[in-house]
Amino acid sequence: MNFTEKHPGKLFVLSGPSGAGKGTICKRLLEETKELELSVSMTTRNPRKGEEEGVSYYFTDKESFKKHIEDGDLLEYAEVYGNYYGTPKDLVLKRLAQGIDVILEIDMQGALKVKENYPDGVFIFILPPSMSELRKRLTGRGTETAEAIELRLGETLKELSYIDKYDYCVVNGVLEEAVARVKAIVVAEHSKVAFTAEELIESYKEEA
Amino acid sequence: MNFTEKHPGKLFVLSGPSGAGKGTICKRLLEETKELELSVSMTTRNPRKGEEEGVSYYFTDKESFKKHIEDGDLLEYAEVYGNYYGTPKDLVLKRLAQGIDVILEIDMQGALKVKENYPDGVFIFILPPSMSELRKRLTGRGTETAEAIELRLGETLKELSYIDKYDYCVVNGVLEEAVARVKAIVVAEHSKVAFTAEELIESYKEEA
Repeated sequence: MNFTEKHPGKLFVLSGPSGAGKGTICKRLLEETKELELSVSMTTRNPRKGEEEGVSYYFTDKESFKKHIEDGDLLEYAEVYGNYYGTPKDLVLKRLAQGIDVILEIDMQGALKVKENYPDGVFIFILPPSMSELRKRLTGRGTETAEAIELRLGETLKELSYIDKYDYCVVNGVLEEAVARVKAIVVAEHSKVAFTAEELIESYKEEA
Repeated sequence: MNFTEKHPGKLFVLSGPSGAGKGTICKRLLEETKELELSVSMTTRNPRKGEEEGVSYYFTDKESFKKHIEDGDLLEYAEVYGNYYGTPKDLVLKRLAQGIDVILEIDMQGALKVKENYPDGVFIFILPPSMSELRKRLTGRGTETAEAIELRLGETLKELSYIDKYDYCVVNGVLEEAVARVKAIVVAEHSKVAFTAEELIESYKEEA
């Protein structure tokens, strides 16, 4: 038998187009599932009012951040408007080793980088029920022009061709149902033979 | 992209040692999940009082049964005390094609045969919480001698080495929890990218 899992906790990566509702699903999961913990990102941008070190972000300077990149300390990182954002690998692995599931909410590019660095993660793609519903949600936010929204929809269609890099896809039409579905995925992943059987078998054998 | 699934319904195979409680879990699942249907076996034994054709079993004669074996019409079959029992392939596939999930409760030998004939099935191993609990349950039934029970426990230990042929394992300590876990597996399997994404992507593209 070949059991590849090394950690008692699992990394769940929630990804998908902007407007699909991954943030809302993530928030609900964290509220309702005490065994799940959010991965806290590292950033070089300045803390904003009310942001706490280690809760909102780990704040650092560019020099240290670049050192982390060079040392391969990050599961993924990106530069946005001159600031760096990334996911510290050691902190995630530490929680997984402690048997705590970690959830990471991230765009597709980030998710694909995480997959390269941690293929044992569970990759979940959150989808809107339809393109027209996605357009409606993005328009409703009132933060982007109609043109920018159409560009974003085009990007979403392109992203869909990467869906086979993911393990699961969940359509977020009714929020309750989408949350229940992601919860079911968390439970099912913990029941996978490759994940859980080795320890179980040992306990039966010891007892017998 | 390579989507291997052919049917909108899924075959869930519940297996495990006698006394693990797969029958009870199966019964509860069928009561609580209307999208699931039990696979009805074919047999050459005579109908007992109250047994209905097509509900309890499909009753047939030995000659016809042997013809079914030869024609590869069965997902699995076994001979028990001179009678044949088997799972008719066409009936299962028909329900799967109609988008109905089929559940099959079967011993390990049967499950492994089903896997050979239908690898797209989802194979779930139901386990007792411990060997001592399994001994207690088997003793409690009062149908077997202490010696027969010890033999059965030995068999169970051997069966455990085949657990990596299964996709999931569920420990049946508290029945409610085990049922919830199998239900979560059913939901998660329907959210798998390989199972559901192709159709979804088509719908987005058509709309755009």
